[in-house]
Amino acid sequence: MSHTDIPGNVTAPRGFRAAAMNCGVKAGKPDLVLIHSDHPAAVAATLTTNQFRAAPTYVTERAVADGYARTIVANSGNANCATGAQGMENAYRMARAAAAATGVLPSEVVVCSTGVIGHQLPIEKIESGIASLGGQLGQTAPEVIAQAVMTTDTYPKAVSIEFDLGGVPARIGGICKGAGMIHPNMATMLAFFTTDVGIAPELLRRALRTAVMESFNCISVDGDQSTNDTVAILANGACGAPSLACEDDPRYTAFAEALRYCCTEQAKKIAWDGEGATKRITIHVTGARTWDEARQIGRHLANYTLLKVAYYARDFNWGRVAAGAGAAGVCIDPYRVTIDWCGIRTFASGEPVAHDMAAGRKALAERDIEVTVHLGLGEACCTVWTCDLAPGYIEFNAVDEL
Amino acid sequence: MSHTDIPGNVTAPRGFRAAAMNCGVKAGKPDLVLIHSDHPAAVAATLTTNQFRAAPTYVTERAVADGYARTIVANSGNANCATGAQGMENAYRMARAAAAATGVLPSEVVVCSTGVIGHQLPIEKIESGIASLGGQLGQTAPEVIAQAVMTTDTYPKAVSIEFDLGGVPARIGGICKGAGMIHPNMATMLAFFTTDVGIAPELLRRALRTAVMESFNCISVDGDQSTNDTVAILANGACGAPSLACEDDPRYTAFAEALRYCCTEQAKKIAWDGEGATKRITIHVTGARTWDEARQIGRHLANYTLLKVAYYARDFNWGRVAAGAGAAGVCIDPYRVTIDWCGIRTFASGEPVAHDMAAGRKALAERDIEVTVHLGLGEACCTVWTCDLAPGYIEFNAVDEL
Repeated sequence: MSHTDIPGNVTAPRGFRAAAMNCGVKAGKPDLVLIHSDHPAAVAATLTTNQFRAAPTYVTERAVADGYARTIVANSGNANCATGAQGMENAYRMARAAAAATGVLPSEVVVCSTGVIGHQLPIEKIESGIASLGGQLGQTAPEVIAQAVMTTDTYPKAVSIEFDLGGVPARIGGICKGAGMIHPNMATMLAFFTTDVGIAPELLRRALRTAVMESFNCISVDGDQSTNDTVAILANGACGAPSLACEDDPRYTAFAEALRYCCTEQAKKIAWDGEGATKRITIHVTGARTWDEARQIGRHLANYTLLKVAYYARDFNWGRVAAGAGAAGVCIDPYRVTIDWCGIRTFASGEPVAHDMAAGRKALAERDIEVTVHLGLGEACCTVWTCDLAPGYIEFNAVDEL
Repeated sequence: MSHTDIPGNVTAPRGFRAAAMNCGVKAGKPDLVLIHSDHPAAVAATLTTNQFRAAPTYVTERAVADGYARTIVANSGNANCATGAQGMENAYRMARAAAAATGVLPSEVVVCSTGVIGHQLPIEKIESGIASLGGQLGQTAPEVIAQAVMTTDTYPKAVSIEFDLGGVPARIGGICKGAGMIHPNMATMLAFFTTDVGIAPELLRRALRTAVMESFNCISVDGDQSTNDTVAILANGACGAPSLACEDDPRYTAFAEALRYCCTEQAKKIAWDGEGATKRITIHVTGARTWDEARQIGRHLANYTLLKVAYYARDFNWGRVAAGAGAAGVCIDPYRVTIDWCGIRTFASGEPVAHDMAAGRKALAERDIEVTVHLGLGEACCTVWTCDLAPGYIEFNAVDEL
């Protein structure tokens, strides 16, 4: 896909403004962000499948049900999860405050929270923060918008591109925060995208679902879906091209490709910025019967504690790849499996392949590590991204008094 | 169940002898063990479901198929896994050597290996080791037998009891090694039991399957089934009581209970001796619709990295219990869930319960930690055992040159 990187993240697409601030949920750092479309916009969102869903995910689910929304409000520092009836009421209060601050209906507001579970939001602080952000839309620098959703992320995660939509330059922008769960228990992957493409809600949903499946659903830091995970996109049509209404429109393909690119770039940043991580791991599972089976094995390998430690430890023990692939719950035939690690063939057709262990250890000293497991069963493949498990993960998650 | 602890582990039941030695697979430590019944014996085994099964598991699968076996041979230091055709031949050579050394048929030998994956066994050393062990049966002290299967276990894991089998004193003994996977990649949970109860093979299989399900299948150190996992039992009838032939025989219930007790004791030792572990975690899931669902949630919580770190870090953040229970892939209703951690109620009926955080942190400083999640959906329950994730786990698994 051809595209140009441009600055501005969520405010790069035309007709979007944003603002961020510290409203007092956390000490000092930005903890509240407001993103707003100046025009009516289609919306799509994918939400966590965790059964202990946070209150704001219910509010967002309702807001996106009719396919239209204009405002996203998100706080960090408190997840508003496992907070009962008061938590639900507070999530709706956030929606109402953001609606009032941006001149839309409460049902047009996507609400997100991230942070500690089981504590009530300081809702008055958040409400007055939202009110002031309403008057500051467009006045916050894009870098600060991206920083506002950071928790233990070591760098802000933003993307914005311009691509060709049937002759019209169209844009997508995004910010996100990491999925690694952390002291003080920031328990969520949040990703927000904006685009000035015009698109029917059902097509936007389809494009987002596909893009998320092959990006955010193919990463793993510690292997779990949090209570608050949300990916949301607003599409306001401000690029001026006619709205996409049909899947067969080649412009839809261009948009879907561009969105997938943005999602994948953001997802990789999350995977590789896991807490304490020192390495960027890319796992290719090829020759599978189906994409689902390829992904199941890829994710199992990505979550496999022993393998995650081996990357960190430069332990070129490819047997852990075999053991991990075999434990994924997918029926495979070891006699058809080929394992390449850092480009070194270690196992093929049911037999170990003699290789240079020293070269393997040297390869594992690199920052980028590739593992390829070829199953020899079919044509499907999937790529999954993760990071190593380093002592920093435990240090990150340990409380101060230790 | 009433029973008496007795010494002797696998040689405590009458008619069993064992021997162990270092045969040169590993440097210095015992790496080979032979267990033999002087009488014909029924056998049952449960094997790993990992798709990358080691060669000896295929040999064992055939040996136990007819329900009778008399000898168990096991080496540590090399898993004989992902070793192709030569690996299969080597596993059969171990069976033939053990058969010759103990005067039985090769088809009466259970073969197990544990250690590094992808390397061929030093089969000549093992064969000559097995030959000498044949002449030493009964001459190795029980403590050394238990030590012979240790890898990074911090203590030998043995059990032996005498219990009442309808008026006759009967015995069960066992040794096992830990499931924590380790440098140099000892990738297996092995557990061997002997009993002088006489029992029909199909009943023995049933008793073992049930006992394993509620013990070894309810523990987790790093959440995966290795390539070599094996639990095997020989039952030789030497206690003198009539053989158990019917499930309705109350003596069968006594035996099944005794076996379950032994399996649970051994499983807990494995769970709590995980690499680098500092705490013993017991997770109760109650009020589930089914035992399977209770176990699925329990195991998910046991494997949940963030929670395993929280125990270590004394981070009394019960939200991680909620998030982990919600991500287990079981449909639950958060509004019916109650969460107790170290006896402190933190969440009930969809609402957080005010509690003393300082008391929670103090409780987490104890070595034994209990977590209870009541789902409020039914009557089924399951208990799962695990350990914390401490920096020692990563240190254990890191190679020396780091």
